[in-house]
Amino acid sequence: MTHISELDTPALIIDLDAMERNLKRVADYTRAHGLRLRPHTKTHKIPELGRRQVALGAVGLTVAKTTEAEVMLRAGPSEMLVAFPVLGRQKTERLMKVASQTPVTVAVDNAESAKALSLAAEAAGVSIGVLAEFDAGLHRVGAETPETLVGLVREISRLPGLRFLGLNFYPGHIKDLGEDLTDTLQGLDQCVSSRAEAVEKAGFSLPVISGGSTPTLFESHRIGRVNEIRPGTYIFNDRNTWQLGACELSDCAASIIATVVSTSIPGQVIIDGGSKTFSSDRCAAENAPGYGYFPDAPQAVLTKMNEEHGYVDVRETGGNWRPGDRLRVIPNHICVAMNLHEKVYGIRGDEVVEEWKVEGRGKLQ
Amino acid sequence: MTHISELDTPALIIDLDAMERNLKRVADYTRAHGLRLRPHTKTHKIPELGRRQVALGAVGLTVAKTTEAEVMLRAGPSEMLVAFPVLGRQKTERLMKVASQTPVTVAVDNAESAKALSLAAEAAGVSIGVLAEFDAGLHRVGAETPETLVGLVREISRLPGLRFLGLNFYPGHIKDLGEDLTDTLQGLDQCVSSRAEAVEKAGFSLPVISGGSTPTLFESHRIGRVNEIRPGTYIFNDRNTWQLGACELSDCAASIIATVVSTSIPGQVIIDGGSKTFSSDRCAAENAPGYGYFPDAPQAVLTKMNEEHGYVDVRETGGNWRPGDRLRVIPNHICVAMNLHEKVYGIRGDEVVEEWKVEGRGKLQ
Repeated sequence: MTHISELDTPALIIDLDAMERNLKRVADYTRAHGLRLRPHTKTHKIPELGRRQVALGAVGLTVAKTTEAEVMLRAGPSEMLVAFPVLGRQKTERLMKVASQTPVTVAVDNAESAKALSLAAEAAGVSIGVLAEFDAGLHRVGAETPETLVGLVREISRLPGLRFLGLNFYPGHIKDLGEDLTDTLQGLDQCVSSRAEAVEKAGFSLPVISGGSTPTLFESHRIGRVNEIRPGTYIFNDRNTWQLGACELSDCAASIIATVVSTSIPGQVIIDGGSKTFSSDRCAAENAPGYGYFPDAPQAVLTKMNEEHGYVDVRETGGNWRPGDRLRVIPNHICVAMNLHEKVYGIRGDEVVEEWKVEGRGKLQ
Repeated sequence: MTHISELDTPALIIDLDAMERNLKRVADYTRAHGLRLRPHTKTHKIPELGRRQVALGAVGLTVAKTTEAEVMLRAGPSEMLVAFPVLGRQKTERLMKVASQTPVTVAVDNAESAKALSLAAEAAGVSIGVLAEFDAGLHRVGAETPETLVGLVREISRLPGLRFLGLNFYPGHIKDLGEDLTDTLQGLDQCVSSRAEAVEKAGFSLPVISGGSTPTLFESHRIGRVNEIRPGTYIFNDRNTWQLGACELSDCAASIIATVVSTSIPGQVIIDGGSKTFSSDRCAAENAPGYGYFPDAPQAVLTKMNEEHGYVDVRETGGNWRPGDRLRVIPNHICVAMNLHEKVYGIRGDEVVEEWKVEGRGKLQ
């Protein structure tokens, strides 16, 4: 058995007890509210963790990319959703190979993507499920109005090789869980209902209305028409989730152990991780400075990074760290941090009990 | 032969003509000024490119990590510098194996790191070169004063298994190449001289005084005591180097091809690359908004990113992109972008003539 103090740093560790609590809490919540759970695996990119999500009742798995779909096949999902408009010959061809092994659905917001999928599906002799994406306020992808959404659904439904299955949206703009949340959710509920009604009025049925993100996860049942959610970060949570008020600090299952390598500048220590270890993502919460949170030294601030150096302001900690000391850091955004690590370690207490390769990392296409 | 239009996106491409000009220009400059060139390979992380730097006269190669040193052995350097205070048993043990194959030097700024290296070198029966690091104004690592530097050199010189070879510094704080540059360089020159004199006065000779970064590269000869430089980014350059005034736009050899995947929000297109493709590093130059530069559409701004989505503000471009169209983006910071790509493509004109695995990517320890 390896003790965590023996891990070479920087090392991304996962507290398995916390992770399992996170997985169970969401599985229980969705079951209690009759919601389908299709977790987004872009957060962990590890087939074994996808397998655990499936075992806890996930109806399928969500991926962002064709290449992630290939990797996540090894989790044995009963179906897979690519929550991204797939475009490009190589991508559609590869995706059809995935679809020959497990049912595949794609979220689509434009005719070009729908046509490309249709052509590839026809050529490969497979059938692809399609969710029509609408914009619920993030202004990223998705049909902007009920009218354009109905047009998109009509286009999808007449293309061979595609099965229209319903609607997809991502409320990634809702991060503030404060006192305006009820108003915000009512607005979202209205937006979703109006889109669903318009599509149904045009003669289409909607087996799936898929929404949900991690911050608003436990409010999903308040959006009446939603029957499926696709949270990703909930498996680990991160500083963003915690400081936005969507989980407790003890629910942050993933952290990075780094070693102090220099203390030559007074009031500062340098750790052996920077932007290539944590990513340069800032914290989404207000008044949350720095590129990570030190649970064992909350006054320390990771003020600046180079690629391999992290600058930690320790003036307020009263600590007296020396080169060789180890610090634990909860990253601002675990999804991008995971993508930077070749492997991660599962721990129970101080013992390393699992080592997983991040098999989906860097699969860019 | 593959045409670049056939590459699946996002794809990181390298214009080999531009890269070869960049390599030659710096090799010529260092030769003309009698400077040793020890390129930092953390930018490219590809042994074949290290080999080309060696072939052009590099005295050795620089790496940031023990694991990068292991990878870069395949470039066949005559020596290797780890420009980072190596700490931790696994790291020192692995580094000794590298040192049994090619001479290794480490830049050190504290006694703990020096002692750890000494113990490991003794145990492995190898000798490790050491450069004592001083702070030249970046306030990252390095002895702060001439006195602490002399103390560090004394410590290093009495430890078995180590050979004290000289001084190391990194002037990464100098980014403004404007009218104050002469003053800035005079200050740096004075800083370096005072450190060198103090160490020499204490009875040590200094075969190596190693400095240099990419922005100030071609000013290195103005720092009198410097006899070696370790630029990294110069092989490709990036938006930072260009917009800081340290190269021409045509010297930016690396760019990323992305595909438009959604145009549903007016005035905006979404491309199939975000923070997992470009990194979230902002541009170091002032008035340079966005996460990359579009050389073929300079008015477009990559205003925001999620992991796999890039939001491009196209209101000022007059362009009319559709899903499936391709855009070329010069990343703000090529070193972190390279680290996100499994492989990169070398091009001549529009033909793909090389495909390299980024072998050193994600080697975090």
